[in-house]
Formats: sequence, structure tokens, C-alpha cells
Amino acid sequence: MQNYSYSALFDFSKNIFLAIGCTKQNAQQAATALLSADLRGIDSHGIARLNGYVRLWEVHRLKPNPDIKIVHETPSTAVVDGDAGPGLIVAPVAMQIAIEKAKNAGTGWVSVQNSNHFGIAGYHAMQALSYDMIGIAMTNASALVAPTYSAERLLGTNPIAVAIPAGEEPPFVADFATTTAANGKLEILQRQNKPAPQGWVQTSEGNSSTNAGELKKGGALLPLGGDKEHGSHKGYMLGSIVDFFSGILSGANFGPWVPPFPAYLPMPDNMPGKGIGHFLGAMRIDAFRSAADFKKDMDRWIKRFKQAKTIEGKERIIIPGEPEAEMEQRRKTNGFILDPQVIADLEQLADKFSIPALS
Amino acid sequence: MQNYSYSALFDFSKNIFLAIGCTKQNAQQAATALLSADLRGIDSHGIARLNGYVRLWEVHRLKPNPDIKIVHETPSTAVVDGDAGPGLIVAPVAMQIAIEKAKNAGTGWVSVQNSNHFGIAGYHAMQALSYDMIGIAMTNASALVAPTYSAERLLGTNPIAVAIPAGEEPPFVADFATTTAANGKLEILQRQNKPAPQGWVQTSEGNSSTNAGELKKGGALLPLGGDKEHGSHKGYMLGSIVDFFSGILSGANFGPWVPPFPAYLPMPDNMPGKGIGHFLGAMRIDAFRSAADFKKDMDRWIKRFKQAKTIEGKERIIIPGEPEAEMEQRRKTNGFILDPQVIADLEQLADKFSIPALS
Repeated sequence: MQNYSYSALFDFSKNIFLAIGCTKQNAQQAATALLSADLRGIDSHGIARLNGYVRLWEVHRLKPNPDIKIVHETPSTAVVDGDAGPGLIVAPVAMQIAIEKAKNAGTGWVSVQNSNHFGIAGYHAMQALSYDMIGIAMTNASALVAPTYSAERLLGTNPIAVAIPAGEEPPFVADFATTTAANGKLEILQRQNKPAPQGWVQTSEGNSSTNAGELKKGGALLPLGGDKEHGSHKGYMLGSIVDFFSGILSGANFGPWVPPFPAYLPMPDNMPGKGIGHFLGAMRIDAFRSAADFKKDMDRWIKRFKQAKTIEGKERIIIPGEPEAEMEQRRKTNGFILDPQVIADLEQLADKFSIPALS
Repeated sequence: MQNYSYSALFDFSKNIFLAIGCTKQNAQQAATALLSADLRGIDSHGIARLNGYVRLWEVHRLKPNPDIKIVHETPSTAVVDGDAGPGLIVAPVAMQIAIEKAKNAGTGWVSVQNSNHFGIAGYHAMQALSYDMIGIAMTNASALVAPTYSAERLLGTNPIAVAIPAGEEPPFVADFATTTAANGKLEILQRQNKPAPQGWVQTSEGNSSTNAGELKKGGALLPLGGDKEHGSHKGYMLGSIVDFFSGILSGANFGPWVPPFPAYLPMPDNMPGKGIGHFLGAMRIDAFRSAADFKKDMDRWIKRFKQAKTIEGKERIIIPGEPEAEMEQRRKTNGFILDPQVIADLEQLADKFSIPALS
């Protein structure tokens, strides 16, 4: 198996974004945000999706150099029009607006309309960390999830990321889909011809299923909790809140009307808004309390959790963000192994744009 | 079974708060916040806990008329010291500060230290609705929950409430513990001598259990998701975020150091902060977008969800907050049936303070 370096993946991705017309700065930003997924081990959202962004550009749903604008604002809020740009480029601009607002008003909250997928939510939330701020990022997405009691897909996997600075300890970074399991995990099971655990998916009629390919037959992902008895209404509420903050506060599409990422899928009828929506937040720690004191308490919390007595067979409690940070170090040093299908996809892309193949 | 009117419950609760020394205004506020739980059908958090607040007062952990102060602030944030008051009184003041900040800065975010339990989170979040604002309320609580892989209890049930205005439709009100099931539901199963479903609790060693009384033997509630395969790390992350926002941002206690509600339980050693912590937020809708347009889209979302095809045996998808609003109407009209143990408790309280019995 070939091993690819981070710089090889970065140059390749940047060249593809340049090839579809991005400025150098936009291409670098898009490649950086995209590959943060691969670095952190979320392979489904990284370079594997590069082709998906190109296909959106091909059908004129994605502008390589969007004219990103604030359409409304107050001291702590803004609505940003992403001008149909890649979320990989739009969301970092929106997050920077949130950070600037937080510098002045204590917090900043930016709801984004007219955008496209933004990669992993965690990347955007983490932009706040170096400013001693808490970062928050959410996005809605096309409907794959059936709310509790629904046989229809009405919500996206609508992820939430929250990044919180610590002192000596690495930052706490939560980044999760509001479903029992992310779609990427189902795709892996499918490739391996394995069943999915109970509580991950249901059939198109709303019956419980362990078929990892159920989504292709009109089935749905289930909200975090899986079924009502195990709190799926809570996952449904979380996914809904992400939809309201990202889609409805901004004037983007929402619910079953969010446009799909795969460019070959038809657009929903009667779309109420523009593109997909994101929500970015930044909270300056010292708008509440001395950042040094806050971080000392974060360290105390993290150390206590790491020392906790565990269940049998587990060495210790995982602090969210820590395995991803370790993966990032490892992959930066050791490089990446890519799925053969992804490699084939990238070869086709190189051919299409006559750019150097990934090597 | 006797049927009690809302005004009977209100007068009784108010008289108890007056008896421990609350001013008339504080007693009314505390009774209103407390009984919002009974009105909305969350019986575990309402008048059933009145005695619990009295016991905290008896051991000098609760001041009936706290001197609630802003200790730090920016245009969109504040930290409030609750002066060991009941959260039922402290949180409404903090929420009003958040609302005032939102009027000027677009959003307001208040982290509260040195408080006590605040009843249901939903009551506080809903205070924002009449201002055409989104309301958010969270609180930490004493440790009953074992994070993923932990055999120890390290987090509270740490609930999150988000209230979002709609137009013709009732507001969307989410209010949920970040565990698979709330402790109140376990207590009901225990009284009925019934087992708990898998994924709700574990033993003190961290083994899976269906014993609804497991918490009394050192066991723990499980984070939303139940086990790792079903996303319990996501529930653990949510509970942690509530802890950081409520406990660490404010300078309250956090994690396993949050003081217990039952006054007979010992206080944790080496407590890092003051009392328990809350986090209240208010977001002015028109700091983002015209409130009328926002509400129209909320109505469209809600109507679409209500019309969705359902799984077999279910009439329709539930919109969070709707059953609770219906319950409130019903109970205001028809009154309340109380648990015999609660009635006995209230009789003792009436005797203790020589106030008229509930009737």
C-alpha cells in the first residue's frame, strides 16, 4: 500500500481547487479545511470528498471564489451570505467574523446562508482556540435522518462541534453527528459486507433494520438514542436545533429541503431558502472569567476524568479531541493510506484537469 | 384520589417559601418556577422537590433572599453570583440579564456560579419567547452519570433546554437530560418494581444492568446513547459541555465536585468553586433575520414534520414542547393528582411551619 505524505495530499487538493478556478488563497483555505478531516481520522469527510466538490462546481452549484457578504449584523451577531461558495471557504470567513465580534462584544454568532458542505465541523470550531475562545460550529445537511416516529427522512446528520481551550492538557474538542452513528461508519460496514448494529438505521417503512445498505433502499439513519425508549427524541431535538440555527436563522434551506451534496441527486421541490446553512460561534473566555483560571479548572477536570476507575477492559476514559490530536501527529509524521476507490477517483480528477497525479 | 388546583399548589408552595424567609416577590418567583414542572408534566422536578429546597435551607446551604450580583460582564456576557440562592430565584434574574444584553448586543449569555437547583431548564429558556428571542438554559448537577468507559459517576444529568418561537404553531421547546433516561423515570420504575431497559444504568463496576434501583448501590446513569456502539460518547460530550458552560465558565463547582441536592448527602471534598452552575442564553431573532420571516419558516418546518409519514402505530411525529403545552392547559383546567408520598411530605411541611395544609 502506498503511503502519501500530508504535503502530497495538500498540493494535490490545492491544485484541484486551483483548477476549478479558486484563487491561490481560496485553494489553500479549501485544501486546509478539507484535509483537516483526514488528519483527524475522519476519512469520510476529507480528500475522499474532493471529487464531490468538483461535481457541484460542474453543475454550477458551487462558486470557486464566492463574494461572501454580511447581510445583517448587530454587535454580537451576523448573517452571512456565502454566495454559493464551498463551505470550506465560506465557514472560515464566517468564523473569523464571529471571532472579531467576540473580541468586542464578548461573544460572536454568525448564521450562514447560501453555502455548501464545510467539511468537518471540528475544524471550524477549533479556529477559536488560539484566541482563548470557545469555538462552536454546526451545519445542516440534506435529509437522511428520520425523527422519532417518522418513516420519512426529514433532517440531516446535522453535526455539532464545540472546542474548549485547556491549559497543560490538550483542548476538549467534541465533534459529532446528532445521529446514533455517522453515515461514514455505515459505508465502511457496507464495503465489508457486515450488518449494522440495532438502532443505527430503519427501513423505508420505519421498521428496525441491521442492513448497512438500508439508506440506498429509502431507509433512514436514526437520531442519537436510536429509539424512543433510549432517548431518540433527544437526538431528534438536537438535530432540529442545529437545523433552526443553521438553516432558519440564516435564511438557508432547512429540514427536507436542504440540497444534497451528491450533484447527481435532484434538488428538492419548493426550496424555501438559499443553499445549506451553518452556524458559527465564538465565546471569549475572559468575557466570563480569567482565561488562566478557566484553563486551570479545565486541566483539573480533564486530569480527574483520566484518572477515573474504568469498566473492565478499558484503560481509561477518552477525552474528546485527544485521539484525534494524536492521530493528527501520527499522520503528519507517518503519512496516509488511502482507500483504493479514493485513489482511483483522484487519478480521474488529475486526468480531467491535466494536473500532476497524486504520488 | 384528590384533585388539587393550580392555585392551591401555588399558594401552598408560596407559603413554604415565605415561611423560610423569602420576600413575597421571591416566594412567588420560586413557586412559579417550581410549579412550571408540574404544569408541564415533569412531576419529578416540581412540588415533589419542595421539601428538598427546605432541607437545603435547614442546613444553611440555601439563602431565601440572595443578593444576586453581576461579578463580570461585557456587552453580550455576564457572570452572575447567585449568593447561594435557590436556582428558582437566581436563574430568572440571570435570564433577564441575558435578555437585556440581547436587546442591545443581539445576544446575551450569562454563566451563574453559587446557585442551587433551578427546577426545569425549560422554564428558564421559555422566558425569552415573549421577547421574540430564542432562549437557552443549562445547569450542571451532582454526579450520577458515568462517562463512556467510566465505572465512576463524574457528571450530572446536565440538562439542556432550547425554546424557539414559531408563528401560528406553538413554540418548539426542547428540554432534556443528557442521559438516556432521566432519573425521575428510574424512580417511577423502582416504585412499580419494574426493570429498567438496557442502556439506562450500569452497576458500580460498570457492568450493564436492568435494575432500576442500581443508583442506590453505587451504580450510575448512562449518557445519551447508552453504550459506545450507540453513541454514548456523544451524550458524554453533551453533558461535559453543559458542565464547562455552567460550572467552569462561571467559577461554580463542576464534574464530581458539584454539591448534591439531597441535604443529607455529604459535600464532595476539595470543591473547586461555589455552589452549582447554570448557563442562560438569549438570542434576539431579528439580530439575524426578520422575526416574522423566521416564524413563517418555523411554521413551515413544524407543519411539514406533523404531516410526515409515520412508523406503524404512531399517529404523528411529536413536536418538542407541544405535549407539554397541552399538558399545561389540561392541568390548569383539571388540576393535579399527586403521589401519596408527596402528599405526606407536604403535610409534614405544613405542620413544620404551621401553615394551612394543601387542600
